[in-house]
Amino acid sequence: MDSIRTDIAWSTPDSITAFGRDLPSEILGKVSFGDMAFLEITGRIPGPEESRMFNAMLVTLVEHGLTPSTIVARMTYLGAPESMQSAVAAGLSGLGSVFVGSVEGTAQMLYEVMPTPDADADLSALAEGIAARFAERRAILPGIGHPFHKPIDPRTPRLIELAQETGFAGPYIALVQEVAATAERAKGKSLPVNATGILGALCCEMGFDWRVCRGIGVMARAVGLVGHILEEIRNPIARQIWLQTEVAATDHFRATEPKED
Amino acid sequence: MDSIRTDIAWSTPDSITAFGRDLPSEILGKVSFGDMAFLEITGRIPGPEESRMFNAMLVTLVEHGLTPSTIVARMTYLGAPESMQSAVAAGLSGLGSVFVGSVEGTAQMLYEVMPTPDADADLSALAEGIAARFAERRAILPGIGHPFHKPIDPRTPRLIELAQETGFAGPYIALVQEVAATAERAKGKSLPVNATGILGALCCEMGFDWRVCRGIGVMARAVGLVGHILEEIRNPIARQIWLQTEVAATDHFRATEPKED
Amino acid sequence: MDSIRTDIAWSTPDSITAFGRDLPSEILGKVSFGDMAFLEITGRIPGPEESRMFNAMLVTLVEHGLTPSTIVARMTYLGAPESMQSAVAAGLSGLGSVFVGSVEGTAQMLYEVMPTPDADADLSALAEGIAARFAERRAILPGIGHPFHKPIDPRTPRLIELAQETGFAGPYIALVQEVAATAERAKGKSLPVNATGILGALCCEMGFDWRVCRGIGVMARAVGLVGHILEEIRNPIARQIWLQTEVAATDHFRATEPKED
Amino acid sequence: MDSIRTDIAWSTPDSITAFGRDLPSEILGKVSFGDMAFLEITGRIPGPEESRMFNAMLVTLVEHGLTPSTIVARMTYLGAPESMQSAVAAGLSGLGSVFVGSVEGTAQMLYEVMPTPDADADLSALAEGIAARFAERRAILPGIGHPFHKPIDPRTPRLIELAQETGFAGPYIALVQEVAATAERAKGKSLPVNATGILGALCCEMGFDWRVCRGIGVMARAVGLVGHILEEIRNPIARQIWLQTEVAATDHFRATEPKED
Repeated sequence: MDSIRTDIAWSTPDSITAFGRDLPSEILGKVSFGDMAFLEITGRIPGPEESRMFNAMLVTLVEHGLTPSTIVARMTYLGAPESMQSAVAAGLSGLGSVFVGSVEGTAQMLYEVMPTPDADADLSALAEGIAARFAERRAILPGIGHPFHKPIDPRTPRLIELAQETGFAGPYIALVQEVAATAERAKGKSLPVNATGILGALCCEMGFDWRVCRGIGVMARAVGLVGHILEEIRNPIARQIWLQTEVAATDHFRATEPKED
Repeated sequence: MDSIRTDIAWSTPDSITAFGRDLPSEILGKVSFGDMAFLEITGRIPGPEESRMFNAMLVTLVEHGLTPSTIVARMTYLGAPESMQSAVAAGLSGLGSVFVGSVEGTAQMLYEVMPTPDADADLSALAEGIAARFAERRAILPGIGHPFHKPIDPRTPRLIELAQETGFAGPYIALVQEVAATAERAKGKSLPVNATGILGALCCEMGFDWRVCRGIGVMARAVGLVGHILEEIRNPIARQIWLQTEVAATDHFRATEPKED
Repeated sequence: MDSIRTDIAWSTPDSITAFGRDLPSEILGKVSFGDMAFLEITGRIPGPEESRMFNAMLVTLVEHGLTPSTIVARMTYLGAPESMQSAVAAGLSGLGSVFVGSVEGTAQMLYEVMPTPDADADLSALAEGIAARFAERRAILPGIGHPFHKPIDPRTPRLIELAQETGFAGPYIALVQEVAATAERAKGKSLPVNATGILGALCCEMGFDWRVCRGIGVMARAVGLVGHILEEIRNPIARQIWLQTEVAATDHFRATEPKED
Repeated sequence: MDSIRTDIAWSTPDSITAFGRDLPSEILGKVSFGDMAFLEITGRIPGPEESRMFNAMLVTLVEHGLTPSTIVARMTYLGAPESMQSAVAAGLSGLGSVFVGSVEGTAQMLYEVMPTPDADADLSALAEGIAARFAERRAILPGIGHPFHKPIDPRTPRLIELAQETGFAGPYIALVQEVAATAERAKGKSLPVNATGILGALCCEMGFDWRVCRGIGVMARAVGLVGHILEEIRNPIARQIWLQTEVAATDHFRATEPKED
């Protein structure tokens, strides 16, 4: 087979090498799970501040209670309890443009106008440009506003605080805030940066390819979904959700049925 | 909607609470990604030794090079690059009984004969019992032997070493080794404990429900799959694998075609 | 690449051949969708009676209203409307041992005691043997009883009628009914054959490998899921199901909150 | 649970009603699998010509040999043979923008300039408009050209022939051909309509919502994937593909290893 190549990892009968490191002796017990995720994305072990920031980014999206993806995972487990991996897979399948995909959307939006970090950029002009471009495409600005967390997403100020503590509060964080401020002025309503917006900006601060940013959310949710499946095993609710949903959604049929007497 | 309840997490407009902790102020920046995974499974933050052992367990299965699941993820990305989450989901779908599922199989096997850790158990008798039970069902012992890593899976001794360092080298680790020794005597060939076997035993040492053990592998692989998709973005190989596979598998058709001249 | 071979189909720049037939001229417009499914499973075009029976088998599982798999598909579409294929994939992921998998379970159960059709078999003895075997394993008999369709699954008598009309009411149909009768006597309650039980028996009558029987249900549900996604596009309900579920499941948290005044 | 409603189907203990029909007596044995798919999309049973055309559309995408989706399904089955539904789900996950998604893309493109069929439309002007719009967005025209089937996709003329026979060769078929002709003139190379392009146009002729068109391909591939999984069961090739791929892709590592002597 020609012309195919991976540089991530390879094995011999008595060794496994990943990212140029001997997996057993140089990674196991030395690299944490979060830092291993960083290694997968960047090919290197993070420094202490990077690690703190990146771990917080991952942790942000692990858990948000009974979301659509957790309901999907639980309801898939109901039908196929022998295949927990399928329940996680089903739950991840909905992390598209509407939910977690906005991490990616935000990063792409920011990189488009500021391909490399520029401390001297005219953020106001860049934000206006973004707003104009999205208005032209009739597209929704990603990472701004939240249907439930109002006036502000409680994760946002904490992530900004951590970015300041770890040295990652750079021009992309400033830019995404300027985009939100511009949108707020245009719409005349509160539209603060939400958690996925800050995460998208942090991906830019870390220099990640925008095409991999959604992956941060996918990794995180995979962890949270396992937790929800475990709760489903111990205290099942999926069947009840299904049955009550079915009855409610077909109630109009029963209403028109002739009553027997 | 009656009778449904989750105790994992809930939100108000200005707060998110997970496992009884305020997510922004008590988890973000304070709990690492690996420890968050532990929190999802146990409901508590691990101690330092637990954290070290558990992170190593997770990291063990993140990366093993070009496995079936990474090929699946890459080939799915080829067709749907706008949906990276689907590529990860597809890759996870094959983590069933043959590959990562053996973590779960091992834990279940060990718990069946030793429901709670028993330092005084007659390991030899328990291992004989396991072997007899599996022979009767004509089932394959999980977590033993490896088709490629011979004579020993290089992750196994390192995981045992870490278990000793962190205080998790208890009766389940001893039992799974006794199972392997029993199998080796019965088959007359080398059948050492492989990485998933040790991981299954470690899940027992940590007191995890056997039904969630496969989840350790699922979490881990989700992280590794994102890394492989990123490499596929930068250096695509899926199309080439497909085309060469297709040609090779249909070569017999072409061989029987009449040659035109 | 060595030793790999497919015999299903192959292409040249100006032709596609599937199952030895020229796809454009010999299949398109000549073979219906249901008969194409038969061709995929058996390698041949069905006769008229086979076609009628097999199409009815497929159609049986296409639609059953708001099942867990349709809720999963709708809720996945909510998050990733750009990836309808992922919504179908997620919906299929739960067709495991609990729901559609019982088609396979029934076929395997019947083949185990009657590997080839035997018109002279002592059905009563075979059914007793099956019941004893399942009792010993503490396993649930597949294809028998239904939590909702009582006293009988309305699809069952119709499928039996069609089997009689098409000549497929053979020893496997008789055997699965005998299994149900045996179970009813043992349990002292009504446990008639359900739709998946008859479908499993019909798979045996048609000589299908038991390992492919679940595939009948998977094909069928894929069709039904597309219909539900289309309704979700036009009259969305997934968001509402999610929000009401979330509120109901976290109500106990709010109940314990101190009221502000 | 408020405000949720499905009109597709509902059940009572002794009945199942789908699309206003009693499933056992009015659908089973009377509606073929292909016509049931039509019912799911349109809410009505097709007429004879509609049925012939729609069945051919479905059958077109069932089988194309060893495609990425069939490799994905086979390789997923390798790891989780107990979960055939997951193998199909994984295989469907890649039917995104690059492959089957172009059915949807074509339909959307055609509807955008001709929302309802218009026999008097200036096709040449419409096609120019489409080409200009796509050039402006730097987007690739869907449904045009094929990397392998050259000069023409053999399914295309047959589908057009069937459209003529069944009365579905209307303005959308003409328009998609005009789009291809326009593209050919602009690029100076052969770019005929491919199978997914004709299928997209046929979806418009049938009046389908463009958002459901990808579903035609998803239904079809689900059927084909079951066939490939069955061949994988009988003549496994996934493990061999994996092993040879892995060796080829990591060959450069071995090449740089010092040889032992």
